[in-house]
Amino acid sequence: MSIGIKDLAKELQLSVATISKALKDSHEISPETKERVLKLAKELNYTPNPYASSLRHRGSKTIAVVLPEVADSFFSMAINGIESVAQEKGYHVLVYLTHEQFEREISILKDFQNGRVDGVLLSISSTTCEYNHLHKLYEENMPLVFFDRVCEEINTAKVQTDDTQAGYVATKHLLEKGCKKIAFLSMNSNLSITKHRMQGYVDALKEAGLNDTQKLVVECDSNDEVSYAIIKRVLEGDRQIDGVIGSVEKLATMTYAVCDELLIKIPQQLKVIAFSNLQIAGLLNPSLTTITQPAFEIGKTAATLLFRALEKRNFDLKAEHISIPSLLFERKSTS
Amino acid sequence: MSIGIKDLAKELQLSVATISKALKDSHEISPETKERVLKLAKELNYTPNPYASSLRHRGSKTIAVVLPEVADSFFSMAINGIESVAQEKGYHVLVYLTHEQFEREISILKDFQNGRVDGVLLSISSTTCEYNHLHKLYEENMPLVFFDRVCEEINTAKVQTDDTQAGYVATKHLLEKGCKKIAFLSMNSNLSITKHRMQGYVDALKEAGLNDTQKLVVECDSNDEVSYAIIKRVLEGDRQIDGVIGSVEKLATMTYAVCDELLIKIPQQLKVIAFSNLQIAGLLNPSLTTITQPAFEIGKTAATLLFRALEKRNFDLKAEHISIPSLLFERKSTS
Repeated sequence: MSIGIKDLAKELQLSVATISKALKDSHEISPETKERVLKLAKELNYTPNPYASSLRHRGSKTIAVVLPEVADSFFSMAINGIESVAQEKGYHVLVYLTHEQFEREISILKDFQNGRVDGVLLSISSTTCEYNHLHKLYEENMPLVFFDRVCEEINTAKVQTDDTQAGYVATKHLLEKGCKKIAFLSMNSNLSITKHRMQGYVDALKEAGLNDTQKLVVECDSNDEVSYAIIKRVLEGDRQIDGVIGSVEKLATMTYAVCDELLIKIPQQLKVIAFSNLQIAGLLNPSLTTITQPAFEIGKTAATLLFRALEKRNFDLKAEHISIPSLLFERKSTS
Repeated sequence: MSIGIKDLAKELQLSVATISKALKDSHEISPETKERVLKLAKELNYTPNPYASSLRHRGSKTIAVVLPEVADSFFSMAINGIESVAQEKGYHVLVYLTHEQFEREISILKDFQNGRVDGVLLSISSTTCEYNHLHKLYEENMPLVFFDRVCEEINTAKVQTDDTQAGYVATKHLLEKGCKKIAFLSMNSNLSITKHRMQGYVDALKEAGLNDTQKLVVECDSNDEVSYAIIKRVLEGDRQIDGVIGSVEKLATMTYAVCDELLIKIPQQLKVIAFSNLQIAGLLNPSLTTITQPAFEIGKTAATLLFRALEKRNFDLKAEHISIPSLLFERKSTS
C-alpha cells in the first residue's frame, strides 16, 4: 500500500493542509516544518499522486492569458504566439488586461476558481508589489507559466529574454558609437525586467571604466505627459547627455518628440536606442535602433510549456526556466 | 391564452422549425413562406416569447471576440474598448483570431454552442466569401454584434465608421493639395469597408471632374512581399502618379519603403495618406497624414450594445446601426 498525505499528517501530528502546503513549498509554512515533512516523505518513500490535485482543473479546455496591455506591440505579438499554440491544441483563450493595476490583477486571478480555466499564462503588472494572489493560485495547483514579466519568488515555469544581457548590449552599442554620457530612461522600476535591463546598463558602464558621475537613471512615469516633462527637463538641463536608452518603446518615441521640440538632432547630438518590438521602427525619422524581444516566440514557448503540463500530468513546470535572446537592430538613430 | 409557434405551425401545416426560421427571417426559408407566416402571425396577434429562445445562452458570463488579428493597432485598441466594458460588467472575454482565414472563422464559430459564450462580437475575415456560418449563429439566437468589418446581410447590430465618407475625405484632401493622379491601394476588396472606402475615392474623383484615365485602383496582396512588388511596379511604371491612398496602414508604410528604394520624395513628388490607427504616425519620416478610425470607441460601443442585449431581453439588436466618424490628421506626407 502506498503512503499518502494523510499518513504523513498522522505521523507528524500536523494537518493534511499543512502537509500539502509544505510539499508544495508554500510560503505559509515555516522552513523547519517543510524540512520535517520532506524528511519523512523521503523516509517513507512518499510519491505524490499526480491525479489527486490536478483533476478538478481539467475539462474547460480554456486557458487564461493575463497581461498588462494589448495595445502594445510586444504583448500583441506574444498573444499571437500563444494563440497559435492554443488553436492547434483546440483550446479557448480568455484574455484579461490588468492595465498595470495591482488591484485588478488580484481580482482577475480570484475568478479562476471552479474550473473556469485549466491553466494560466501571466505577465505581471508594473504596480504589483506583493505576491499573495500568485502564491494562492500556485498553491491551488493551477498550472501557471510566467512570460516576460515574471515573479521570481513563485516556483513555476518562466519564459523570458535575457534582459541583463540586452541592457548590456544596448549600452555597449552606444559606448562604441562614442557616447560619453548615457541616460537610462526607466519605467516601472519594481519590475524584474526593468531591474535587469538597468543592471546590464550599469555593468557596461563599469566595464568601460566610467564612474558614477556618468551614470544617469531617469525614472519616468506611467502618465505620458509627466514622462514627457521629465525627459524634457533632463535633456534641457544637461546638454552633456549624448545617448539615451529607452527601457520601453514609448520612452524612445517620446525622446524623439522632445528632441523635436528642443531642436536636438538625432543622431548627431543625441543617439537613441530602445527596447522595442515596433515593426516600423525602420520608418521613424530617423530610423530607430532597437533591442527587439522575441515576442511571438516568448508567447509560443510559454503556451507550449503550459499545454505540456496540461497533457502530461508528470511534467514538471518548476524545472522550466527558458531564456530566448533579444536582438540588436542597428539603424540611423545611433549612427 | 396567447398564440404560440405551435399554433402557427398547425394552422399553416408547416413544421415548428420552419415557422421559427421564417420569423427570424432565415435565408433558408423562401420569401413566399415567410410572407404567409408573418401574415398569419399578425392576424393572430402572435408575440414572440422573448425568454424561450434566449435562456439557454445565459450564465457563462463570457463573451467571445472574433477578429482577424491582434497585432494591429486598430484591433488591439478595439479590444481595449471591449474589455473596458466587459470588466465593468464582470464578464470574461474569449479572444479568437481568424488570421483572415475563412475556414478558421467557421471552425471558431462552431464552438460557441452549449453555453460556452453568452454573446459574440465579430469583425469578419477578409477571405470570408459566404455567410452560412453567420446565418447559423444568428438563427440560434446568439446575441451578435458586428464591429468594423460587418456582414451586411445579417440582420443584427453593426458598429462602424462611415468608410465611404472617410474615403471621400482622404481623396478630397489629396486633390486640394494639388494631386492630379491618385492611386488607391486596395486590399481585401471583398470586404465592405474596402468597397466603401473605394466608393468614397470614386465619388471624390467624379465630383472633381476627373475621368476614368485618372482613376487607378491597385489591388495588393495579403503577402507583404507580393504587395511590395506590386506597389513598386506601379510607382515605377507611372511617374505621373502624385498621390497614394493606403486603404490599410500597411500599404502606406510599404509605400514609404518603396519610395525610399526608388528615390521618390514624399511629399514633394508623391503625397501619401493612409487609413491608420498608428499612434506614432507623427514620428514617421515624413510624418504620415492619416484617416484615423475611432477604434477604442467602436469596440466600446459594440460591447455596450451586446451587454444591453444580454441584460434586457427585449432589447432589439437589429435596430442598432451605429456609425462613429473617422478623423483626418494632416501631417507632412501630404504637405
